[in-house]
Amino acid sequence: MKKLINKPDDVVREELQGMAAAHADLLRVHFDPDYIVRADAPVRGKAAVVSGGGSGHEPLHGGFVGTGMLDAACPGAVFTSPTPDQILAATKAVDGGAGVLHIVKNYTGDVMNFEMAADLARGEGIRVEAVVMNDDVAVQDSLYTAGRRGVGVTVLAEKIGGAAAEQGRPLADVAGVCRKVNAQGRSMGMALTSCAVPHAGKPTFDLPADEMEIGIGIHGEPGRTRMKIRSAAEITEMLARSVLDDLPFVRGDAVLAFVNGMGGTPLMELYVVYNELARICAGRGLWIARSLVGSYITSLEMAGCSLTLLKLDDELIRLWDAPVRTAALRWGM
Amino acid sequence: MKKLINKPDDVVREELQGMAAAHADLLRVHFDPDYIVRADAPVRGKAAVVSGGGSGHEPLHGGFVGTGMLDAACPGAVFTSPTPDQILAATKAVDGGAGVLHIVKNYTGDVMNFEMAADLARGEGIRVEAVVMNDDVAVQDSLYTAGRRGVGVTVLAEKIGGAAAEQGRPLADVAGVCRKVNAQGRSMGMALTSCAVPHAGKPTFDLPADEMEIGIGIHGEPGRTRMKIRSAAEITEMLARSVLDDLPFVRGDAVLAFVNGMGGTPLMELYVVYNELARICAGRGLWIARSLVGSYITSLEMAGCSLTLLKLDDELIRLWDAPVRTAALRWGM
Repeated sequence: MKKLINKPDDVVREELQGMAAAHADLLRVHFDPDYIVRADAPVRGKAAVVSGGGSGHEPLHGGFVGTGMLDAACPGAVFTSPTPDQILAATKAVDGGAGVLHIVKNYTGDVMNFEMAADLARGEGIRVEAVVMNDDVAVQDSLYTAGRRGVGVTVLAEKIGGAAAEQGRPLADVAGVCRKVNAQGRSMGMALTSCAVPHAGKPTFDLPADEMEIGIGIHGEPGRTRMKIRSAAEITEMLARSVLDDLPFVRGDAVLAFVNGMGGTPLMELYVVYNELARICAGRGLWIARSLVGSYITSLEMAGCSLTLLKLDDELIRLWDAPVRTAALRWGM
Repeated sequence: MKKLINKPDDVVREELQGMAAAHADLLRVHFDPDYIVRADAPVRGKAAVVSGGGSGHEPLHGGFVGTGMLDAACPGAVFTSPTPDQILAATKAVDGGAGVLHIVKNYTGDVMNFEMAADLARGEGIRVEAVVMNDDVAVQDSLYTAGRRGVGVTVLAEKIGGAAAEQGRPLADVAGVCRKVNAQGRSMGMALTSCAVPHAGKPTFDLPADEMEIGIGIHGEPGRTRMKIRSAAEITEMLARSVLDDLPFVRGDAVLAFVNGMGGTPLMELYVVYNELARICAGRGLWIARSLVGSYITSLEMAGCSLTLLKLDDELIRLWDAPVRTAALRWGM
C-alpha cells in the first residue's frame, strides 16, 4: 500500500484540516464531532441540505459544501458511516429555521445513523426530511446494504437539490426535487483495480492482472461479474446497456450524462469512455443536454469508472445550470 | 497495464472526440492536424494564448481552453511533442490580429517544434511571442531536456496570462506576465508508482513496492533520488524545502500554493499534503493568499504529487481571480 499519508488514524482529520486551510473562503470545519459547513452557515430562512457518508469518496461530500449545493457534509472514517452525533451537530449548525434535508446514500449504516440523527433533531424542534439515493442498477442487495446502493446520482441530487434550496424553495419542494432526481437517474460502475483502506494496509479485494469487475460498489463490494478486461467500447456498452434499460430511457429523452472516475483513473480514459457513451446515446435517440466528466464520487485510488444517466426536464436543467461555488464544482459565481 | 481504452493508436483521437462531445459549449476540436480552440475563436483584437505538449498530462492543456485562459491547445501523441504543423494550424486558427503567445514547457522537442511553428507563422504575417516554462527545481538536465523542466507553473501561467489577454492587454504585456509567473514560481514532484504509456504496454520505470522517487518528471523521467517511502509530512517537507529555498521565498511573501496530483492519487491524500504544506509555509512566515488542490498536470495514472509555489503580487492576484470558463477551471462565469 503506497499512500501520501501519515498515521492511518489521522488521515481524515488531517484531510479536513487541509480542506479548511485550502478553502477558508468556502467552508468551515468543525472537529469532534467532525463536520463541514458552508462559510456563511446557517443561512436564515433557507432550507438546509446536509449529506455525508464514509470518507474515501472525495470530493463527495465535503467538496460539494458551499453556495448552491450542500450546507453541510458529515465525513465518517474511511468507508464508514458518520455517527448520529456528527449528523445531529451538522444539522443543528446549518438549520436556518426552514428545516434541513438529509441526502442519504442507501447503505444500512448511513440510513440508520441519519434516521437516528433526524429523530434527535426533530426532538429539538428542527424540521428534517430525508431522501435516500439508490441509483446503482448493478445488484439488488450487497455487502453493506439491502436494496440498491446509492452512487453517482447522489452528486447530481446534491447539485440540483442544493440549487432549489438556494432559490428559497421550501423544504418539501427541495426534497421532492431530490426524489425526482433519484427516480430519474441510474448508474453502474466497474473496477480495473482494487483500493486499499489506510487502516487495512492491503487491497480491499484481489483482482487478477487481466481481469475487471463489472458492477463494483464504491467500497469495493462485489458487483455482477468478473471477466477478462475488454475494450473501452465493450465496457461502456455493458454499463450503458444496464443503465439505459433499467429506467428505461427512451428515444427523445434529454439526459445528463455523467462519466465518473473511481479515483485512480486518468481523465484521458474518462473522455475515451465519454466518447463511447455519447455514441451509444445517439444511437438510442437520446439527447445529451448536459454532461459531467471527472472523478466526483471515488473509491480511494481504485481504477475504474461509473456511468450515470439522469433524465432531464426543464426544471432539472435550470437547477443544474444555477450558480454553484464549492471546492469541486463551481460555475456562475 | 489496465486501461479504459480501445486501440493504443486511437487513444488521443478518441479522447479529443470525447472532449468535443462533452464540451461543445466551450471548445471545438480540429482533426488532422489535431488542435482544440475555444468555441468563439478567433477573438478579434485579442492577443491569443496557445499551449500544447504531449498528451497524458490532462487536463493540461486541452482542459484549459476557454474564456479567460487558452485560445488553443495542441495535443501531441502520449508524452510526445506536438508537431510544428499542429502548432502552426492552431496559431493561425486563433490569431485575431493582435498576435499569438506560445506557452511552451521546457522539453527539447516542444521548444524546437514551437520555435519552428512560430517561424512559419511569422512568415505568414502573424506576430508570435513565446515564453518557456522551466520551474522544476528537481534537476538541471533531464532525459528530455536541457535546463530545468516545465511543470506545475505552466498551469498558473496559462490561467494568469489568459486573464491578461482576456482583459485586452497587448501581446508583449501578456508575454511579460507569463515570464513573471515563471520567474516567481517553483515546483517539485514525487512518484509512488510509475505510469504506463498505452503503446508501450508496460510501466515506464520500475519502482519497488516500498520505494518512491523524489524529483520525478511528468513523463516518469528520473528525479533526484529514490528512497524508502516516508510519511506525508516528511515527503512534503522534502519537496517544500527544495522549492522554498530555490527562489528563495522569504518571510512576508504572499504565495499561491498548488498541490497537484499526478493522476492516480486520490484527493484525500492531496489534502493531507496541503495540510503539511500550509504548516510549513506558516512556519516560514509565508502567507498563502491563494491555493489550488487537485490533479491539473498529470502523468497518466502515476500516483504521487507535486508542489508548486508562486510568489504573488497584486497584479497576479487580480489576474488569478479573474473569471475563467474552461473544462477544468471555472469560476466567475
